[in-house]
Parts: sequence; structure tokens; C-alpha cells
Amino acid sequence: MSPASVNDNEVDIVIVVKDPDAKQVKIPEGFDVRVYTESDIVKVVGSSKAFLFSGYSSRYFGYLISNKKYIISIDDDCSPAKTKDGDFVDIVAYHLNNLKTPATPFFFDTLYDPYQKGSDFVRGYPFSLRSGVPCALSCGLWLNFADYDAPTQALKPDMRNTRYVDAVLTVPLKSMMPMSGVNIAFDRELVGPAMLPALKEGKVRWETMEDVWCGLVVKTVCDHLKLGVKSGIPYVWRNEKGSAIDSLKKEWEGVKLMEDAVPFFETLRLSPSSVTAEDCVVEIAAAVKERLGSTHAVFVSAAEAMAEWVKLWKAVRSLDH
Amino acid sequence: MSPASVNDNEVDIVIVVKDPDAKQVKIPEGFDVRVYTESDIVKVVGSSKAFLFSGYSSRYFGYLISNKKYIISIDDDCSPAKTKDGDFVDIVAYHLNNLKTPATPFFFDTLYDPYQKGSDFVRGYPFSLRSGVPCALSCGLWLNFADYDAPTQALKPDMRNTRYVDAVLTVPLKSMMPMSGVNIAFDRELVGPAMLPALKEGKVRWETMEDVWCGLVVKTVCDHLKLGVKSGIPYVWRNEKGSAIDSLKKEWEGVKLMEDAVPFFETLRLSPSSVTAEDCVVEIAAAVKERLGSTHAVFVSAAEAMAEWVKLWKAVRSLDH
Repeated sequence: MSPASVNDNEVDIVIVVKDPDAKQVKIPEGFDVRVYTESDIVKVVGSSKAFLFSGYSSRYFGYLISNKKYIISIDDDCSPAKTKDGDFVDIVAYHLNNLKTPATPFFFDTLYDPYQKGSDFVRGYPFSLRSGVPCALSCGLWLNFADYDAPTQALKPDMRNTRYVDAVLTVPLKSMMPMSGVNIAFDRELVGPAMLPALKEGKVRWETMEDVWCGLVVKTVCDHLKLGVKSGIPYVWRNEKGSAIDSLKKEWEGVKLMEDAVPFFETLRLSPSSVTAEDCVVEIAAAVKERLGSTHAVFVSAAEAMAEWVKLWKAVRSLDH
Repeated sequence: MSPASVNDNEVDIVIVVKDPDAKQVKIPEGFDVRVYTESDIVKVVGSSKAFLFSGYSSRYFGYLISNKKYIISIDDDCSPAKTKDGDFVDIVAYHLNNLKTPATPFFFDTLYDPYQKGSDFVRGYPFSLRSGVPCALSCGLWLNFADYDAPTQALKPDMRNTRYVDAVLTVPLKSMMPMSGVNIAFDRELVGPAMLPALKEGKVRWETMEDVWCGLVVKTVCDHLKLGVKSGIPYVWRNEKGSAIDSLKKEWEGVKLMEDAVPFFETLRLSPSSVTAEDCVVEIAAAVKERLGSTHAVFVSAAEAMAEWVKLWKAVRSLDH
């Protein structure tokens, strides 16, 4: 591919948010890095909300305080993957290329993303749909340590993801997908308010289930606002961490919630009066409380966390000006 | 992949239908081939309907008279592609593997078809959706001569498809896609009646637009009957044929019809009383006539051809017994 031009003023890749529970953060030399610690978090959100950003969720504080157009977030146990030709993947260039070219959610292109170099629209693709819509979210993939839930990991401990699929595609309209925060990029101006931590119970987090919930929210927002979500390249190489059995203990309750959450999001239709990501999140939160609240208490607290997040988001934005 | 076991009694790959307009057909030695000619076509469908099966559409006569469970259809200008490792692709084994493993249209799996060897469901995939649904249609891709419409070919005459994407995925529910008949396989028992020639005006055919229409019909049928459609591997190598300018003359009118056809199919909902592919095609044909008939006369004749096809299909089936 021809890398998209990277403008340093547009991309935040050098915010580090120190997990309040972590002892120290090792940062290589030579980067223009701003490190945020627990005291910064408390200063911005108050001590009562700081728990939102502990552990795995510390990234969300970075999303909240960045004022750049594009945000790219990669887990700390990842390194750039190699393409099938042996070259290191330029993760930033690939993600920006995904975000800066249109997405095509209204009709499936069998040649994957028609805006990638060497691809195009196949015959039969309606001309009126070829200009596409803005892409708001780019979900990358990873090799090696596989993207499976704890039960699958426990059943197939030796399974690794080794297949490098050289493609990215727009996830079609109304098709829900399980987002991961391990390797993603998004347009903060378009969907920042929908990239939120919500699915947790008190201080207990169901690890990646928090991301999956966030993905259902942001996909619903994108479908409503006519924005696109791409999934595919770039790949990162993910080192192993954690034990499947430990994950199973923490994650299993969250996994079961999907049986209620997915049908809810698949049938949810937002009102025309919701015209921004903030509006959409507030409307989704109310619907979660009303329609899912009775099935599990965690949905009630997720709804509250979503409404709270929008308030935080607006408060931080008002500080920008 | 581990090739699916191929049972000769289940797959028709050795029917040859001689295009009534072609002078002769060259068939390599060593195959157990049954060749059908114009006189066979006339015998089965009558001389007034033989025009349905001339030229490019001769394949549909093969679909009509086969009594095997699986049908694989590859254009005569194709040969097996090579994988990135340099091995020839076993087209039959790949297509059968796609058809014999479930499809997953209700939720997007970011690791593509979870039933391919080396893949699985990503964390967050609802367990209740993991058993999937029967796969009725496998749409393969091709390399070299690209799958573009005549206007795109005319604008980009040197563009070739060189990217081998080692993946197959289920096209999500309600997402329409532009099917091609160049390299496909399907389960005749499930969707045979929906694999039909219809979009043509008198003896004029808009080449691949006839396939695209068929694809919209069969995808609608699959969505309604809870069946799946996969797109991706296997690839064939396609030799060049034809001139973009000639295609442009024949195909352009058909391309424009997509602007009306796609919104129609995207919003069409079939009634619960349609429980077989035949029922669905009859219902779709009536809706085409009613809702699209006034926009272009070709839709009226497409609707009639579809109703006619179902009658032919039933008549031929009744001969089997």
C-alpha cells in the first residue's frame, strides 16, 4: 500500500496512561511522551470516578484527554507484525489509510475494501454507493496469541492465529461484531464519545468483554450516523500473557451476557433526533436501562456509566476551549 | 485446509452444456462427461424457452437438469489458481468445505469463517450463534482478469487482481453482494430454484448483470430461509477475454438498473408462508413486478422469467420420479 501521510498534529500515539495499579512504566528513549498518572486522572475526573480507568481500562483516560483527530491504541504486549513478504507492518500508516479512505457499509464488495491499493468495486456495485461514507473506526487484528475467549482458550490451549489475511473490509450495516481494544484506531471527532468503558461491576472487570460492549455501542452509533467500521489489516504480533484459567474465572460471567446484549443491539433503532455520537450514547444508555436492566444488574450500571461518560466527555471538551 | 471428502454421487462437475450459438466444444480425454446440446434443451424446455440457455446462460440448463446435491460451476476461461505457497488450489475441495461447514450470518467473526481450519470464534461471539446455519452458496474469487464492470475496465484497462486473500467469510444477514457465476458452488437441494436466469431483454443479455440479479435473488432467499452465503477462497486464475468497449455497449444499461434493484432487495421482506426456495422466488417475482415493473420493462420480463423458471424447475423435478 502507499502509506497515508501522517501528520503529527492529527494522531495521538504518544500518550501513556499509567495504570494506577501498576508499579512502574518503562518507556523507551527518544519519544515525545506525555505520561498521565493516577493523580492526573483524579484531577480530571475526581476520585470517585478514577476506578473507571484502572488496569486494562486506563486507555480510556487517554481517549478522554486527547484532543487529536485520530487516536491509535495498541496493547503493551504487542509489536508490529511482519507481512507475508517479511516486512514489518507500519501500523500507523495502515490504520490512517483505513480511516482516511471511505467505508462502504451499504453493499458488500467481494474484493474487500475497494479503497485499498489494487482493489476496486466489483461489477454490479451500485454507482450511487461508491463514494461511501466516512470511516470512523479501524479494527486491526493480531497474530500468535489468539483472539479467543477464555472457554475456547481453555479447550484449545495450543491454538495460535497464524493466518495473515491480507485484507481489510467494511463490516456491513446492521452487522454486529466483537470489537477488541488491542489494536484499534478511530476518529475521535466522529465517535470519540462512543469509545467508552462501561461493562464492569464495581471494581470487577470482565477484561475484553468491556471492549466487546464498547464495540456494540460504537457500531450502533456508526450505523445510525452513516459512518463506517473497517476490520482487518494491520496485524500486530501479540505475545502471550495470562492464563486461560484465570481469564475463565474473571470473564465467564461477561461472556454469558452476550446472549442478551447481542439481540438487544441488533434490534435497536435510534431516533432521528440523535445526530451526534453523544446523543446516540445517551439514547442507547436509556434503552439499555429500560430493556436490559431487568435481566442483569450489570446492565443498569453499564447504562449509568455510559451516561456518566458523556458528561465527562463534554466536561473535558469544555476545558479545551 | 483438510479437503472435504468428495463423493462423486453428490457433485456435478462433469455436465457440459453446449452453447447453442457455439460451433463446437473441445473436451479433454478421460472424463466421464455428459454433453447436452440445443436439441436436449429443446426437448426439456420446449423451443420457445430455449433462448433462456444460450451463450453465457447455458450453465443454467446444467443447474436445471442436474440431480446431484452440490453443483460447482466454473467458467471455461478459468484454471485453478496457485496459493501463495505455489500449490494449485483444489477448487472442488474448497467449495465443498465451504458448503459442508456452517455459515454464520447473524454476527460478524473478525477471524473470517470460524469453521476453516486454524480459525475459530473470537471472544465475545455469542455461544447461541456458534452452531451457525447451513451454507447454501459458496462464491469463489479470481485472480488476473479482474472482476470489474465495463466502465471500470474501460477506465483502468491495465488493472489486474493480484491479491490472494487467504480467507472466506459469511456475507452477513441483510447485506447484499454482487454475485458472479464465474466460480461458484451451491447446494441444489437448498437453493437450486433460486439460481436462475432472469435479467435479460428478449435475446439481449447484460452479461454478468444476469448473475448479479441472480445473486440478489438467492441472497434474499438465503436470508429468509436462514441459510448462509460465503465469499472468498477458492480462487481461480482467469484468462482475459473480450473487450471492455464491447462489454460497455452490452452491459451499461444493466449496470444502471442496479440503482433501482439494490434498494428494492435491501428492503424486501418475505412472508413467513414462503418456506421453500420455490415459494420465495415466486413471492420475489410478484414483488418485482409490482414494485419495480413501472421503472423499467426489463423488470417485468425478469419477474415473468422467474415465475417461469420455478415452473420449469418443478416440471424437471417431476421427471426425476
